[in-house]
Amino acid sequence: MPAIPDIAVNWNSLWEKINSGDQHALARTISLIENEFPGYDEFLKKLGNPSGARIIGITGPPGAGKSTIADTLIGEWAGIGNKVAVICVDPSSPFHFGALLGDRLRMNQWYNHPSVFIRSLSSRGSLGGLNPHIIEIADLLKAAGYERILIETVGVGQNEVDIAGLAETTVVVLVPASGDDIQAMKSGILETADIFVINKSDLPQADELARYILTRTMSANPNGEEPPVIVKTIATEKQGIPELYVQINLHLEKFNDSNQKIDLLTEKAWRLILQKKMREVNKTQLKEKILKEERAGKFNLYQFISDI
Amino acid sequence: MPAIPDIAVNWNSLWEKINSGDQHALARTISLIENEFPGYDEFLKKLGNPSGARIIGITGPPGAGKSTIADTLIGEWAGIGNKVAVICVDPSSPFHFGALLGDRLRMNQWYNHPSVFIRSLSSRGSLGGLNPHIIEIADLLKAAGYERILIETVGVGQNEVDIAGLAETTVVVLVPASGDDIQAMKSGILETADIFVINKSDLPQADELARYILTRTMSANPNGEEPPVIVKTIATEKQGIPELYVQINLHLEKFNDSNQKIDLLTEKAWRLILQKKMREVNKTQLKEKILKEERAGKFNLYQFISDI
Repeated sequence: MPAIPDIAVNWNSLWEKINSGDQHALARTISLIENEFPGYDEFLKKLGNPSGARIIGITGPPGAGKSTIADTLIGEWAGIGNKVAVICVDPSSPFHFGALLGDRLRMNQWYNHPSVFIRSLSSRGSLGGLNPHIIEIADLLKAAGYERILIETVGVGQNEVDIAGLAETTVVVLVPASGDDIQAMKSGILETADIFVINKSDLPQADELARYILTRTMSANPNGEEPPVIVKTIATEKQGIPELYVQINLHLEKFNDSNQKIDLLTEKAWRLILQKKMREVNKTQLKEKILKEERAGKFNLYQFISDI
Repeated sequence: MPAIPDIAVNWNSLWEKINSGDQHALARTISLIENEFPGYDEFLKKLGNPSGARIIGITGPPGAGKSTIADTLIGEWAGIGNKVAVICVDPSSPFHFGALLGDRLRMNQWYNHPSVFIRSLSSRGSLGGLNPHIIEIADLLKAAGYERILIETVGVGQNEVDIAGLAETTVVVLVPASGDDIQAMKSGILETADIFVINKSDLPQADELARYILTRTMSANPNGEEPPVIVKTIATEKQGIPELYVQINLHLEKFNDSNQKIDLLTEKAWRLILQKKMREVNKTQLKEKILKEERAGKFNLYQFISDI
């Protein structure tokens, strides 16, 4: 077997290119982080953390209109001269391909915009539903001067809880008659959603859905905190988008003052530590050890765990 | 503040009671494990691992008929004298309550059956979608002489991937026209499902769903392994249940021979190690450390992580 060539990465040069606005260098750096290329951890330590950059999460069931809303938000931000990064987290499923590709195509107009950067990440290998390196990648985007980082996930199961632990403002997009979808969502999102969007709000049952959200979130929150913000939109006609935009800004400002910031940092640190610990456990070696003990007829799972 | 009384647990006595068929003692022991009551880890080391006991997972979207099918399977097993345990994993959501309670009530007839044990577990605090102690609890049930352990989860997001890492046979229940639900499922379940049930198969589109499952699973599996088993049922009329029962037994037998057993043990060990490592990280202490460094103006997330 020929020797594997020693591929050297010049992190400093990559960083210079990123700073000069080179999106290819940025995309390549993200791939290096995703693949844990040697040196990526030292590189991350040297990144700054601009205080103005903000992460906004957008989630909801398939077909609720997340991408259309993301699209109009990108337009608002880019319109006032913000640099915008969009991360689409694909569930790591070949079965999603068709559905999501359709969504993503709607964002097409932004792919060649110089101040908009779009990247899809898979959720494969993560503990929860997001990409195992999404925290690092979002921090890279912040350091690279992106002022608004929009993370879009399909809100089923675990994803939407994870997004709430990463984003400073979490927007949950629902459509009338998606009562079943709400039931399929974990409580985490209903508790941590900062803004609910009821899209396609010209459909009947829009008011019913609003009442449902209020009842459910208020009953889960007996200590009488503020009710959630609910914005009604018809995204395809841009109706309600200005109000959503205002509400996001209001929430981001509030966040800046609060000690939620430390909570979010703690959550991020905790996840990074878990990912680190998870990498320390080698499944192949684990299997070999178990196989050996099992063959010797002396394998005891709980003894095995406590010995580690 | 008065001293907290020193509550002693006599694990040996609990175990004797469990062995004599005392379901209250079993329920109490499960609660002690869930709460990590001192001594539970030593208790687990002493459990045997009867080779005949089997874990069957059943998952699928809400309303697919999982509980009705579970119900008939319990009947089949109890009918031939098997001891059957059923674990229902509730997403840790107050919002689920209504929907799931309805499901669970259908199982009512089994609650007082001496050889059937039913327990609900929340998924709160788990890394994936299942209860953090479900592996230990399933092993306790095996040791307690339960021969069939049925784990029922709502298949949205992460749950169904986790169940496949725990169960020896995983049954996925779908209904015609739940194409959206399939799309919302992660690929994990479609790849690891051992048996698909198309329930309410008298509905139109049942054949279409079967073709869809075949196409999707085959295209995700280009190496040409066996196509998945698909069983059509009308659970409310017990139609198709005998075939499902046969297919489950066939799969369990196949599993017994294969080295999937070691893979499953490795997966279980890996998860238990992660849970253990996760417990070692104290979030409150983490937050205090971060707050201190942040106030001193010298907090660097990636330096912080690499120092841990």
